[in-house]
Amino acid sequence: MSNWEDYVRRVEPYVPGEQPKKEHMIKLNTNENPYPPAPGVVKALREMNTDLLRRYPQPDCKILVDAIAEFYGVKSEQVFVGVGSDDVLAMIFLTFFNDAKPVIFPDITYSFYDVWAEMLRIPYETKALDEDFLIKKEDYYGENGGVIFPNPNAPTGILMPLSEIEDIIAHNRDVIVVVDEAYIDFGGESALPLIEKYDNLLVVQTFSKSRSLAGMRIGYVMGNEKLIRYLNDVKYSFNSYTMNQTALILGAEAVKDRAYFEETCRKVIETREWTKKELHKLGFSFGDSKSNFIFAKHASVPAEDIFEALKKEDIYVRHFSKERISNYLRISIGTKEEMQTMIGFLQNFLAEG
Amino acid sequence: MSNWEDYVRRVEPYVPGEQPKKEHMIKLNTNENPYPPAPGVVKALREMNTDLLRRYPQPDCKILVDAIAEFYGVKSEQVFVGVGSDDVLAMIFLTFFNDAKPVIFPDITYSFYDVWAEMLRIPYETKALDEDFLIKKEDYYGENGGVIFPNPNAPTGILMPLSEIEDIIAHNRDVIVVVDEAYIDFGGESALPLIEKYDNLLVVQTFSKSRSLAGMRIGYVMGNEKLIRYLNDVKYSFNSYTMNQTALILGAEAVKDRAYFEETCRKVIETREWTKKELHKLGFSFGDSKSNFIFAKHASVPAEDIFEALKKEDIYVRHFSKERISNYLRISIGTKEEMQTMIGFLQNFLAEG
Repeated sequence: MSNWEDYVRRVEPYVPGEQPKKEHMIKLNTNENPYPPAPGVVKALREMNTDLLRRYPQPDCKILVDAIAEFYGVKSEQVFVGVGSDDVLAMIFLTFFNDAKPVIFPDITYSFYDVWAEMLRIPYETKALDEDFLIKKEDYYGENGGVIFPNPNAPTGILMPLSEIEDIIAHNRDVIVVVDEAYIDFGGESALPLIEKYDNLLVVQTFSKSRSLAGMRIGYVMGNEKLIRYLNDVKYSFNSYTMNQTALILGAEAVKDRAYFEETCRKVIETREWTKKELHKLGFSFGDSKSNFIFAKHASVPAEDIFEALKKEDIYVRHFSKERISNYLRISIGTKEEMQTMIGFLQNFLAEG
Repeated sequence: MSNWEDYVRRVEPYVPGEQPKKEHMIKLNTNENPYPPAPGVVKALREMNTDLLRRYPQPDCKILVDAIAEFYGVKSEQVFVGVGSDDVLAMIFLTFFNDAKPVIFPDITYSFYDVWAEMLRIPYETKALDEDFLIKKEDYYGENGGVIFPNPNAPTGILMPLSEIEDIIAHNRDVIVVVDEAYIDFGGESALPLIEKYDNLLVVQTFSKSRSLAGMRIGYVMGNEKLIRYLNDVKYSFNSYTMNQTALILGAEAVKDRAYFEETCRKVIETREWTKKELHKLGFSFGDSKSNFIFAKHASVPAEDIFEALKKEDIYVRHFSKERISNYLRISIGTKEEMQTMIGFLQNFLAEG
């Protein structure tokens, strides 16, 4: 018999989160934006020149890169785009984390960092968050092969002040420091201005949350021109045409509408703050989320019981069975109406219990 | 000063082919299809439910995988899709080529195989095509860490008979054999039926050529269910959501229209055969291409001179400076009118010379 199986790269089979498809469900489990993308995006889709479909897209993604650079006031040479921030982050791991020393990141954090490290055989080490789920900056001062953490952190939603982030960068000038800002637009302060001061800093963002385009898979990273050039070299060698024509066109359109973007973020933040107050009244506790979700535990009722009760009502939130956080629920911020429905149900459910 | 640059993964900076954007150019340099995708594709784009834009796409790409499986009469569990066949092929290298023995492929072939091997630090060895640019099957019988070749081969366009491919597979039951069939629909015989007989065979195809969707970045591979499961495990670990909503919807729509697909391929084949006759009259020689391009050299005029002369007329073909093939031009098959224009110009140019 054949033995090709001996040489298969074995990975922990990752199971993507539930994608229920019920008509009237309330989907608060994947941190999607409850509002549609900017009106110009749908218009661009409907009016798209369909002769582009048979043509290869721009390998340099110029239309999208230029739009992002313009929005943030950086040079186009300081922007790299990919198929969601997962693609961008995986390319960063592949390009920059080649040292024998371990890459370091928090123990409770975005669940893909250790997966990429294992897949690409990169050594890594995790640093425990403190008892309030805060990152302890001093943990990141020692020798290492690179540093990565989200800000706000996932799934805690807790923001780190920019001064502490700068301390971490300043202590790590010999390696690449990656700040993963998927949720920065919901009240956080971006590390972006620091890319002019530190040539080893990469700031990663995404269109999946604040730009309402999870379905189009667009992520990007900003940093100094040399870092971006290295990323492009690796990307061109891997797959020159990753961003399809619709992603380029709709992405560029989404980033142009600053007023709509700000208005959408403001609404999500307002609803989040209202939800925090209501959850607090119901006996939940949580860190001060600056993201589009709340990571909460209840004083007496186990997270799993609440998760199951909500699910029976077709209200989907996220529960992780991982140590330290297994009694927490991650609740994405939907529309005000959706959150009212959820709070209304919890009022009854917790009163009964 | 910081020394993070010591740990950057260095790659040969790949330069993607020219993408000129002149109004009236004739673009015969990237093997795109001259005809638009099936009419249903544009309709699906115009009528797409735009609420999907803010939602993550199906991680299992079910709508597209099912449509491909239905077209080819295989099970959905035998189909894996990716962001163009480059993404699919890179995932195959990452998943299956982990042996210390070298992966083998032809010296003249698709230019990404050695790039992926180098990037992923996979040992490889090339086998020289014979003097007529044919693959010598016996070269692939020795011990190795995997086998990959395109059929028809690129950039020669020459097809290998299925019986010889089966010989190669049968001699390599302990490793994965990948047949890269990007151009198979233009007159070749696919190795697809052999996936039922050989559990170590992967057949890769793409929507970029015969399906007229280069702009949407859709590739796929078919093989036995175990192979596809391993690929999905690696893909989910790398980036769970690679195919965006429009790629899933338009791809599924494109594959449904068998009549349009067959008609388009037939037209490309007819134009190719007409072009062959005309090129032959003009003093060109070439292998018997079964792809949507012709790889030709002229009896007396250097390829580079013809390339430059065509370019001045805004007719773009492809020229590779690589050894053994530097006196050849790769000419994609456009519409009959485009080929007539090119032939007309060459008649004058070569008569003058």
